[in-house]
Amino acid sequence: MPHIPVSEDLPGIRSLMAFRPETAGPLCDLAEVLLRSAHSLSRGDRELIAAFVSSRNECDFCCQSHSAFAAKQLDGGRSVVSEALRAPEAAPISDKMKALLSIAAQVQKSGKAVTPASIDAARAAGATDLEIHDTVLIAAAFCMYNRYVDGLAAVTPTDPTLYDQMAERIVADGYRMPAAD
Amino acid sequence: MPHIPVSEDLPGIRSLMAFRPETAGPLCDLAEVLLRSAHSLSRGDRELIAAFVSSRNECDFCCQSHSAFAAKQLDGGRSVVSEALRAPEAAPISDKMKALLSIAAQVQKSGKAVTPASIDAARAAGATDLEIHDTVLIAAAFCMYNRYVDGLAAVTPTDPTLYDQMAERIVADGYRMPAAD
Repeated sequence: MPHIPVSEDLPGIRSLMAFRPETAGPLCDLAEVLLRSAHSLSRGDRELIAAFVSSRNECDFCCQSHSAFAAKQLDGGRSVVSEALRAPEAAPISDKMKALLSIAAQVQKSGKAVTPASIDAARAAGATDLEIHDTVLIAAAFCMYNRYVDGLAAVTPTDPTLYDQMAERIVADGYRMPAAD
Repeated sequence: MPHIPVSEDLPGIRSLMAFRPETAGPLCDLAEVLLRSAHSLSRGDRELIAAFVSSRNECDFCCQSHSAFAAKQLDGGRSVVSEALRAPEAAPISDKMKALLSIAAQVQKSGKAVTPASIDAARAAGATDLEIHDTVLIAAAFCMYNRYVDGLAAVTPTDPTLYDQMAERIVADGYRMPAAD
């Protein structure tokens, strides 16, 4: 049961955003820029970083959501997402994505856990400064979203079709809040 | 040395924001709403939560910045901030703030670490649903800002007068990015 009175008709972070639209605006804008704006990393790759960090933080709602969003936008779909979350080094993803997930895993622990060696490895695999920046910020941002959802005990639906429906909507329309009528 | 080529003339998160203004916008908007918008918790109290979480995350730049911003806006100044960061239960702050810092300490560990008992204790000390919501989101947001700054090894100035100068500016003008010319 959520720690504050939010609509139980809305899943996860959406119920918190309806409770506090003033903070929902920048939270949605940040997700839109990080995960969907024009970029050398595909939308699927960026959603995979979000799902990976959410998995490490054991945030079921965010992990299921962003796994569905990644699966819908990555060649290989659900199977590549499951493999990358379980064992990124052995997953059928690029060496650059393996190196970026390794940085994301360090950020999930602590900012200070990121090593120059992991940055060098990402550069050697072809990562640009912007890709490194955005990987760190996506990982850091999901350390926020995950704590927000679980820190207020938001409702986590168990029906997997609901996450597929959310994926349809996010892929079509994005994260931004609809303008008020 | 920062992990990506950012201006060394700008301190901490400001150098990262100059590197990537597209994400700086929502990051600044979020800080402005959480720490400065009209609220039943004072600006000083909200900055204290930010400094407290940054201290637990050992992010020197954010801890020094938000400690200075809190000290400038709290009765008791630097001494109450130092005491609250070191031993909140014994600090000269309200029972409500002690209960909210206890929730913030749980969020810093993990969203799932927040207990119904700590929420009940905050309510018993007079905290509203909105104050509980914002405490969780401030704590979660600083788990992001802290990881962003340290994950990219942004420069952390050591001169304390620089943090006092930043405090003057933030208290006067806030966090929002200046509009582009």
